[in-house]
Amino acid sequence: MPTLIKNANEVITLKGNGQGPRTKEAMKEIGIIENGSVLVNQDRIVAIGTLEELQKEYPELIADSEVIDATGKVVMPGLVDCHTHLVHGGTRENEFNMRLNGSTYMEIMNAGGGIHSTTRSTRQASFEELYEKTYNHLNEFLKYGITTVEAKSGYGLDWENEKKQLEVAKKLQETHAVDIVSTFMGAHAVPAEYKGREDEFVEIVINEMLPKVAEEQLAEFNDVFCEKGVFTPEQSRRILEAGKQYGLTPKIHADEIEPYEGAEMAAEVGAISAEHLLVASDEGIQRMAEAGTIAVLLPGTAFFLRAPFARGRLMVDEGVPVAISTDFNPGSSPTISLPFIMNLACMNMGLTLEEVLTATTMNAACAINRGDQIGSLEEGKKADILVLNVANYKQLQYYYGMNHTHLVMKNGRVVVKDGVLQ
Amino acid sequence: MPTLIKNANEVITLKGNGQGPRTKEAMKEIGIIENGSVLVNQDRIVAIGTLEELQKEYPELIADSEVIDATGKVVMPGLVDCHTHLVHGGTRENEFNMRLNGSTYMEIMNAGGGIHSTTRSTRQASFEELYEKTYNHLNEFLKYGITTVEAKSGYGLDWENEKKQLEVAKKLQETHAVDIVSTFMGAHAVPAEYKGREDEFVEIVINEMLPKVAEEQLAEFNDVFCEKGVFTPEQSRRILEAGKQYGLTPKIHADEIEPYEGAEMAAEVGAISAEHLLVASDEGIQRMAEAGTIAVLLPGTAFFLRAPFARGRLMVDEGVPVAISTDFNPGSSPTISLPFIMNLACMNMGLTLEEVLTATTMNAACAINRGDQIGSLEEGKKADILVLNVANYKQLQYYYGMNHTHLVMKNGRVVVKDGVLQ
Ligand SMILES: [Zn+2]
Ligand SMILES: [Zn+2]
Repeated sequence: MPTLIKNANEVITLKGNGQGPRTKEAMKEIGIIENGSVLVNQDRIVAIGTLEELQKEYPELIADSEVIDATGKVVMPGLVDCHTHLVHGGTRENEFNMRLNGSTYMEIMNAGGGIHSTTRSTRQASFEELYEKTYNHLNEFLKYGITTVEAKSGYGLDWENEKKQLEVAKKLQETHAVDIVSTFMGAHAVPAEYKGREDEFVEIVINEMLPKVAEEQLAEFNDVFCEKGVFTPEQSRRILEAGKQYGLTPKIHADEIEPYEGAEMAAEVGAISAEHLLVASDEGIQRMAEAGTIAVLLPGTAFFLRAPFARGRLMVDEGVPVAISTDFNPGSSPTISLPFIMNLACMNMGLTLEEVLTATTMNAACAINRGDQIGSLEEGKKADILVLNVANYKQLQYYYGMNHTHLVMKNGRVVVKDGVLQ
Repeated sequence: MPTLIKNANEVITLKGNGQGPRTKEAMKEIGIIENGSVLVNQDRIVAIGTLEELQKEYPELIADSEVIDATGKVVMPGLVDCHTHLVHGGTRENEFNMRLNGSTYMEIMNAGGGIHSTTRSTRQASFEELYEKTYNHLNEFLKYGITTVEAKSGYGLDWENEKKQLEVAKKLQETHAVDIVSTFMGAHAVPAEYKGREDEFVEIVINEMLPKVAEEQLAEFNDVFCEKGVFTPEQSRRILEAGKQYGLTPKIHADEIEPYEGAEMAAEVGAISAEHLLVASDEGIQRMAEAGTIAVLLPGTAFFLRAPFARGRLMVDEGVPVAISTDFNPGSSPTISLPFIMNLACMNMGLTLEEVLTATTMNAACAINRGDQIGSLEEGKKADILVLNVANYKQLQYYYGMNHTHLVMKNGRVVVKDGVLQ
């Protein structure tokens, strides 16, 4: 049945010139249609415009349509969360509490905290346990207006458990309304049992895991944590180049804690995106701009770890296409609220309201190679649409720290209404 | 009909030694009962304990009870938002957007922004318009778990409009589930028409407004904005002392932008609280600790204005009773989410999870002289109770930037369920 979302104060289309990532001034062009309506049929957008325009062109379809009245509200594309560690076991609130009470990193590690605790929990969890936990998280994502989520493996750190994470994501892609795009990240950390034998683990990732990921079609992207004490630039490059042989597009966790020329390498190996970039160098930012590498910035992680924020303002000004994401994970960013992360990008990274909207829709879609399907409201694109309980797009962040999602349409179907799952 | 809230993972009672504000170590004692239940009759709490304990003592009441199953969840007192500018006309998202785009304070003022724009909107709005707008805001407060709100006047700045604001609050206290506690703040700003004649306006506040506030019983507290360029310490002191003659307890907006010995004066005049305190002096903090003046800290305002945060950690350590609030207002803190403000108090002011819980319940209640009625779960207190969708109190802030309110009971009645108003 067709659906007409009618008479929104503003429809934020994010329609631009083409389906690639937006840079500089183009990040500010969010394509506002005042008093706008959107016509949807099956899982696709048929047309966007004023009610009169749509009625003239599609009188019969509109006559058959279910009507959603968006009077006084804002309509925009579903949010795209392009960097999450979605599937994981356990929670780490005790570690968070220790940190608030002044415990050091080493004290937390000695108390069994840190990434290895999530590896243990994820290995211990059964497929069903991980599936159920993640299903519930996806329900929350929907309530906050996120209709597509990237999901990285990397808490298994052996084939059996990496595969389990990836298969949970694959099954959820079939069963849950939220779309999931999978990234293999076997090189997320050096597993405890390989401490001191990092190169050996790199060989396993390259020669044992990557071929199986490709063979079983478990991921589209290949990510690596390039950081002092984790994987060197040389190791990272080998892993990313090997992934390319198997058709996996490179991504990279780069320059998060110490500058390591991760941004530079991302541009060189043709990564679709480099992520974190808290301490990326001026040179690295230039190279990314030239190569068109998308910067996936994660201001929530800086907030939660009390770290300095990435230089988002500079990156936009220098012409890097910027995307913004939650980094949802149990250690450094346990939030699902991309709307709140958008507030942080404004207040603490100096992005404008319009830039942040582009960064969480079109540019985020491009960071997971979905720019042709989602990220903007255009004819033929997926009907992933939000109706927001604000009078204009500026209020979305003006009323900060709140969730204004009123209605969520996913693939043409209403999945959240009045904030409640349907 | 009695109600039994049963088998919560944790009941956070906030029960302490007496009903006054908590300081130092006592701010960390949040009174956890594991696997706890709460028995409610009419609008009051009858008892708190394990299900077995309650069944032994109140078998008949429990047999008659409606049951709310809190298995796997956390139960705590309703949040108290002890500093808001609740009743106001207009919104100022355009000014916010100008600021994000680099406009200066003067450019914003010249474009018609700033506090005077809210004064204009508030004066222009009818009683009914203000009533309806505020009613809707109170609905949002409930959804975020706030069951009591302090409301300051101060956007009228003449008697007719100050009275209108206070009467809207008074009527809402009768009609809306949220409890409202009123503060008169005629000296919130110097109205445009009195520029250069500040002392004249102070005389009007003292000789014309304060007597009428008292006579018509429109407020319990008297607040003033003591700040360079607004009201001097001498003017502020006169206004607060005059209010005392009419039985109005002093509060003060102090040391927000420039140090002005506001904290010191708050202690001297016997204010129940001093608010903001971003740049309060060491000496002022000492005086407040000695006098028992409550520090009402507003981290959202610092976040939204990109200002330095108040020294909350130091204040707690020095023995000041600290409360935390949203400062909800259209210019410097347009949020209703006290849960998010709690995150900021942890991440950016260095308070612990337990201190923040005390600061938004018991200490906030004391800041509006309601410590004997609300702010903790104790026999005989009001049944203002939250059921939160988290497994333990630490997760409340670990899953940051989110609203975990599942069920809200106000005066013994369920007013929010599954996040939806009843
Ligand atoms: Zn990550
Ligand atoms: Zn205030």
